[in-house]
Amino acid sequence: MSKLLEQSCSQLDSLRQTVPLVHHITNYVTVNDCANITLAVGASPIMADDDGECAQITALAQSLVLNMGTLNRRTISSMLLSGQAANEKGIPVVFDPVGAGASSLRNNTAGQILQQVHVNVLRGNLSEIRFLAGLSANTKGVDAAQEDAAEGLAPAIQMAKKLAKAKSCVVAITGATDILTDGERTLCIQNGHPMLSKVTGTGCMCSSLVGSFCGAGPDLLLGAIGGVLTMGVAGEIAYERAGSLGTGSFRVALMDAVSTMTPQMLLEHAKTYEV
Amino acid sequence: MSKLLEQSCSQLDSLRQTVPLVHHITNYVTVNDCANITLAVGASPIMADDDGECAQITALAQSLVLNMGTLNRRTISSMLLSGQAANEKGIPVVFDPVGAGASSLRNNTAGQILQQVHVNVLRGNLSEIRFLAGLSANTKGVDAAQEDAAEGLAPAIQMAKKLAKAKSCVVAITGATDILTDGERTLCIQNGHPMLSKVTGTGCMCSSLVGSFCGAGPDLLLGAIGGVLTMGVAGEIAYERAGSLGTGSFRVALMDAVSTMTPQMLLEHAKTYEV
Amino acid sequence: MSKLLEQSCSQLDSLRQTVPLVHHITNYVTVNDCANITLAVGASPIMADDDGECAQITALAQSLVLNMGTLNRRTISSMLLSGQAANEKGIPVVFDPVGAGASSLRNNTAGQILQQVHVNVLRGNLSEIRFLAGLSANTKGVDAAQEDAAEGLAPAIQMAKKLAKAKSCVVAITGATDILTDGERTLCIQNGHPMLSKVTGTGCMCSSLVGSFCGAGPDLLLGAIGGVLTMGVAGEIAYERAGSLGTGSFRVALMDAVSTMTPQMLLEHAKTYEV
Repeated sequence: MSKLLEQSCSQLDSLRQTVPLVHHITNYVTVNDCANITLAVGASPIMADDDGECAQITALAQSLVLNMGTLNRRTISSMLLSGQAANEKGIPVVFDPVGAGASSLRNNTAGQILQQVHVNVLRGNLSEIRFLAGLSANTKGVDAAQEDAAEGLAPAIQMAKKLAKAKSCVVAITGATDILTDGERTLCIQNGHPMLSKVTGTGCMCSSLVGSFCGAGPDLLLGAIGGVLTMGVAGEIAYERAGSLGTGSFRVALMDAVSTMTPQMLLEHAKTYEV
Repeated sequence: MSKLLEQSCSQLDSLRQTVPLVHHITNYVTVNDCANITLAVGASPIMADDDGECAQITALAQSLVLNMGTLNRRTISSMLLSGQAANEKGIPVVFDPVGAGASSLRNNTAGQILQQVHVNVLRGNLSEIRFLAGLSANTKGVDAAQEDAAEGLAPAIQMAKKLAKAKSCVVAITGATDILTDGERTLCIQNGHPMLSKVTGTGCMCSSLVGSFCGAGPDLLLGAIGGVLTMGVAGEIAYERAGSLGTGSFRVALMDAVSTMTPQMLLEHAKTYEV
Repeated sequence: MSKLLEQSCSQLDSLRQTVPLVHHITNYVTVNDCANITLAVGASPIMADDDGECAQITALAQSLVLNMGTLNRRTISSMLLSGQAANEKGIPVVFDPVGAGASSLRNNTAGQILQQVHVNVLRGNLSEIRFLAGLSANTKGVDAAQEDAAEGLAPAIQMAKKLAKAKSCVVAITGATDILTDGERTLCIQNGHPMLSKVTGTGCMCSSLVGSFCGAGPDLLLGAIGGVLTMGVAGEIAYERAGSLGTGSFRVALMDAVSTMTPQMLLEHAKTYEV
């Protein structure tokens, strides 16, 4: 069994003992789901996005999640201020560049964040990460474009590793196959279920899970794997329990699965390989 | 069987093949429900409301939904900009004038939108639509006032037809009996369940469904009928399955019902008549 | 049986007959839950937070709930304007000082609200209320710190009574034991379940329930008791029905329990004592 996988799964226990406070600056579509999944996995969420208080809130936290969905200009300065406060305090910054490539505002903001903040974990879909890596991407709104996946896995892994090295960060690309790398170590995950794309915010929630894991342990690649794997396995369990009922029940079962997840369940369901 | 009805129901298939991208500028109370129901019916939601990017996002979309709930001044200009971008691109604009009549800000904004944007589908409750038609209305917050329904259906239908002609748009008034008209063709729908009014956002979600259907086909009356009927039938199915458990389970079952709806189920449940 | 308790429980019937309109200025994390629980208990929610309309909306309402979670500067003036409009109209103001103590912005805003608005019911956790009472508090984000509970119940009751007298308001401190007092009459409630703290917004929802009850009857201590007790009993019922499934199902069952609650169920489950 992969050592990386084993260590990641065991982090779920330390997360629940530590109960890290995870500061989110995020979008208004999925913020409630992000708060609930952070609680479900065993961490504690705090949402605060006014630039008059955000740095003070970050100073209380164990990790910071910046999510660019429904970006608005009022909170861009908050993201930068909190990102810098997190860097100063030495807590991990998880950046979810929702919709990067879809508008100039998002592109410029993503550029500003990557320039002014040291991002520790970059989690997005293939189109978003390709865009940030400077490659051409075919963004259609906030979902990954099929054209971007058509090239196959090998070039995506190369791109992720290169970006991770260049930015000294963990890159987590989620999709049918998830790619997680710190530039040296790389794990692919093939868990999850297509129905996850029929519920809004599963990407945002995945970033919250990554923020929760990363707030509890120092090895951020392990944290990113823990978060992404928890989402994938929870998706499979939720589909088994409630998938045939519809997306409403599936979404409830997804939260149930995260809140009752154990390291053992993660290990048993994991379909991963190191590359 | 009504030709209008039959054609509307069959649009559900084309919607699911097309997967239209539906841009929403909407309120922060029900935005998550709107995103989830858009996914459930088979379309793809994108929410973006900063005036620095909204027109660019509209340019990616197949339809635009403007919803005035929790209106704030930051997004009024966004609604106007996106509305104009939609008009230029020739994609349908669905306008949900939540709470029109309840405050000067809402009244003025609704007026501005109707003046500066060509709205293609106007969906609201009787009080809201009456207000926009220039009649006296008895708005009590965001729900239709009972006084406005007391006059009976015939004058409401006349008012709707007149407004549809005057504004060259489809008017969709939802209530115990829904009235849908483009000024020439008119359909009344008697589906739905009173429990729908015990869950927040069923009106907003109905507008998202209308936006989803209208993003997939050129006949906007058919699209409006498809969206309103889907909501009504889903409400009946959800009540049968979960109504006795309470409003939490009913809400989950509502999303389930939309995500598993078929044209055949719509036809079987439909209680409609042309006038 | 406690007279206070009996009177509170019977208020649920009058609430459902009155259907008070409850104006909320609240946070974007839990606003949907607040709207749904307001509907579930039998009241009618309206959310509006732009200072261009908020006072007009308050003028339509039977009570006002001010909630400081995800405070932002755009809505601080709205809270003050609506608070003053509520005072002028003579409808109750429920203030939920989410995260008081956690940042200067929140502390200053709470101070401003308490100075410029007559708050009728103050509902928060022990850390928040201690902070507002001018005692040292150990705020960790938006949850009550364990250190603040360690002192025991007697000093907390004394503090609550003193604060209620000083501010001429009802103080409702929620926690393992809830303390409700108007300075003269005091009731402790020991309902609820720890799983309530694993779902976001149960505090906010509790304030919405208090706002709903207080919008229906003149005795605000009874209203506060009704709201807090409904939340606690609903938590117990939800845990019995769905707790073992996980936090997703528990949350759905919580809403179900509120929407099907009766005065009789409240009385049967109540674990309260006057002090």
